[in-house]
Amino acid sequence: MLDMNDSERGAHIRRLDRKHVFTSWAAQDVVEPMPIAGALGSEFWDYDGHTYLDFSSQLVNVNIGYQHPKLVAAIQEQAARLCSVGPNFANDARSEAAALIAAQAPGDLDRVFFTTGGAEANEHALRMARVHTGRHKVLSTYRSYHGSVGNSMVATGEPRRWAAETGVSGHVHFWGPYAYRSPFYSVDAAQECERALDHLANVLMVEGPNQVAAILLETVVGTNGILVPPDGYLAGVRALCDRYGIVLISDEVMAGFGRCGEWFAVDRWGVTPDLITFAKGVNSGYVPLGGVIISERIAASFSTKPYPGGLTYQGHPLACASAVASIKIFQEEKIVEHARWLGTDVIGPELAKIADRHPSVGEVRGLGVFWAVELVKDRATREPLVPFNATGADAKPMADFTAACKERGLWPFVHFNGTHVVPPCTITEIDLRRGLSILDDALTVADGYYTGAE
Amino acid sequence: MLDMNDSERGAHIRRLDRKHVFTSWAAQDVVEPMPIAGALGSEFWDYDGHTYLDFSSQLVNVNIGYQHPKLVAAIQEQAARLCSVGPNFANDARSEAAALIAAQAPGDLDRVFFTTGGAEANEHALRMARVHTGRHKVLSTYRSYHGSVGNSMVATGEPRRWAAETGVSGHVHFWGPYAYRSPFYSVDAAQECERALDHLANVLMVEGPNQVAAILLETVVGTNGILVPPDGYLAGVRALCDRYGIVLISDEVMAGFGRCGEWFAVDRWGVTPDLITFAKGVNSGYVPLGGVIISERIAASFSTKPYPGGLTYQGHPLACASAVASIKIFQEEKIVEHARWLGTDVIGPELAKIADRHPSVGEVRGLGVFWAVELVKDRATREPLVPFNATGADAKPMADFTAACKERGLWPFVHFNGTHVVPPCTITEIDLRRGLSILDDALTVADGYYTGAE
Repeated sequence: MLDMNDSERGAHIRRLDRKHVFTSWAAQDVVEPMPIAGALGSEFWDYDGHTYLDFSSQLVNVNIGYQHPKLVAAIQEQAARLCSVGPNFANDARSEAAALIAAQAPGDLDRVFFTTGGAEANEHALRMARVHTGRHKVLSTYRSYHGSVGNSMVATGEPRRWAAETGVSGHVHFWGPYAYRSPFYSVDAAQECERALDHLANVLMVEGPNQVAAILLETVVGTNGILVPPDGYLAGVRALCDRYGIVLISDEVMAGFGRCGEWFAVDRWGVTPDLITFAKGVNSGYVPLGGVIISERIAASFSTKPYPGGLTYQGHPLACASAVASIKIFQEEKIVEHARWLGTDVIGPELAKIADRHPSVGEVRGLGVFWAVELVKDRATREPLVPFNATGADAKPMADFTAACKERGLWPFVHFNGTHVVPPCTITEIDLRRGLSILDDALTVADGYYTGAE
Repeated sequence: MLDMNDSERGAHIRRLDRKHVFTSWAAQDVVEPMPIAGALGSEFWDYDGHTYLDFSSQLVNVNIGYQHPKLVAAIQEQAARLCSVGPNFANDARSEAAALIAAQAPGDLDRVFFTTGGAEANEHALRMARVHTGRHKVLSTYRSYHGSVGNSMVATGEPRRWAAETGVSGHVHFWGPYAYRSPFYSVDAAQECERALDHLANVLMVEGPNQVAAILLETVVGTNGILVPPDGYLAGVRALCDRYGIVLISDEVMAGFGRCGEWFAVDRWGVTPDLITFAKGVNSGYVPLGGVIISERIAASFSTKPYPGGLTYQGHPLACASAVASIKIFQEEKIVEHARWLGTDVIGPELAKIADRHPSVGEVRGLGVFWAVELVKDRATREPLVPFNATGADAKPMADFTAACKERGLWPFVHFNGTHVVPPCTITEIDLRRGLSILDDALTVADGYYTGAE
């Protein structure tokens, strides 16, 4: 590759990729992944001279931004010291990462079971709950994503589950709150909260509450629409779990570590779950890492009885060293506070203005740097701009909107009939306003598909 | 920690570990993971001045040895360039890693689906097989380990599965060949091969061969005894798969990338599976990485239909860059050839002599740097030195043997009634002979529990 210019190099990488890389969630002859040549802060660029402002943080994981120099240095330093230690030994990076994570976690969540990502974290959280309770059933919501393996896939409540179900018994899906498209025909957030809790209580009743090991919830639903729970909902779920001895698992793989302007999203509502699962923001994905933070009560179940699970790369030194560095950088640079401020003072107000200007914007919602812009054909009927799980021609309005963003140098996060505003938590106000301005402009394309009266 | 001496530092790390790290496969109040302070080549050391020659390669993953300077440099270089790119983009490290792996893989296995480890690789291989065939059932062997999540856990055929089963339907376990403890009452390897294939054909008959999506096999069974298949077995399984349109998945997470003195263990028998799963040796676990190598026929099933699965850290640049560097180092330093030579010219002959000297050695078997020493109470009855899945007092003979090795500076890999000789593939002949000499010495402890006539 030495004699190639940048553009030829990009083409070469693309050819090798299409010949030898099997891409996730994709038809192999259809997908054309764009090679990224480099990245810094909130931007990345390709081999053909195009730079993009990243409103997706890759898969909502680059919370600290790209190539933070201190984080890169920490990885290099740990690589020089010790890359590989198995889970049957202790090592300093793992001990320190666990202590730092436990220090940020709410209540008595004081122990960390490390994995290499979010799916395995949910898998092990579910196993802990099942062994702890001696029960089998698991409840999770529709419009959720919990991972792509085993039980985490079956617990998922959206179309990516459909082709991957393998008859795992005991998984039950219920409806979570979503005021804009209320499954309970509510008229406001307070009623949505009340009815969503009543619905959950009813599901527990008919499933047998003493049969249920765990309720698994994204604290703030991520990919499936950034659905912020109404005040009181999480506390209500916590009360139901307490009443029946059910383990409450908060999936904060996407919502945790600054994304919601909090260390953990549950902090916003002062609720302490029994288990928190994390990944992504813990080290911004610089090295694969995830895990489960465990309450004393659950940990006690495994004090003299072995926990039945593990993996070779558990508490990987390189990954843990990057988590240590990342958490310290978050503290030094006040990244959580910055993310909260961006939400309250920039994204919230600006998206409200954008909603006023564009009829196709049905609702904006979010917190921190975790916002959704939901697009509709008609504000009165709230008909989505594209159908649920649309592909091909049906998805054209969103594809056109996506193209309009990219042409203008913005890389959006698009899901179904929404676009999410999920840049790095470290994005500058100037870059953020620039991105929102591009979004504003590109939404004119979505307006072109609007059929409502307004 | 700056004012501490080494020993205090070790104690501090141990305290934090026990307070905040939840350890895999362990009772939390019982386990006491030893902190590793550093490692190089085939040795690691603690904070108290003890150095160990590693006959375990951690969890049989440090094939290239600890802290290979070129591999460390490659990780540092990639960290400086680009740590995080999601699976929906292409990147040079991922493209190059996939091309290099495909170049080593047998037959038409030309595409790589990357994961972060072996369990997720098996999970996705099973999903590919199920979607490709439209069938549900999966066959795997007793005495196997395939991972600790979802379907990989349920496919596992040893006690670690017991506490983690969650009613995944469609998994059937059969018996693989194991001449020393033949499930088929065979008298030699040829008969074991014949009867094992007959048994598998019978299981297929009664399960309905046209219902079976996949047969999942460790090419050489690893943790559960390093069971080398008799010549002809894998070809026979391949023929049965061909006959019924069943996907043959070779789990080479432990056996691949040099461990058996081959790039892939299947190369030893010239058999081409439909899918190979890998992890560990691909980059010696310096960065979490695994994956599935996919035949053209299976890949074609997903050319226009999306593959239903993925993960955020798929084809992670840092992990892929380390795989590229590791494969090149393997080639430059002829590590695969070295591993083969160690097996044929050093380990095999030396273990044969050790077996002659120690009555408690029932059998030695293996290839490359992948050997088992199976210990018995009685050579005539072949009663294992400790019962299957023994713990506590029942396991004392193996615990005493383990302690004897560690006292002498050797870190052994002990499983049930066996010890495995699985040092790094790069171990020098001198270190290897030194380790075998310690093993020889420590086996006197095992002989103390021998109750047979000999």
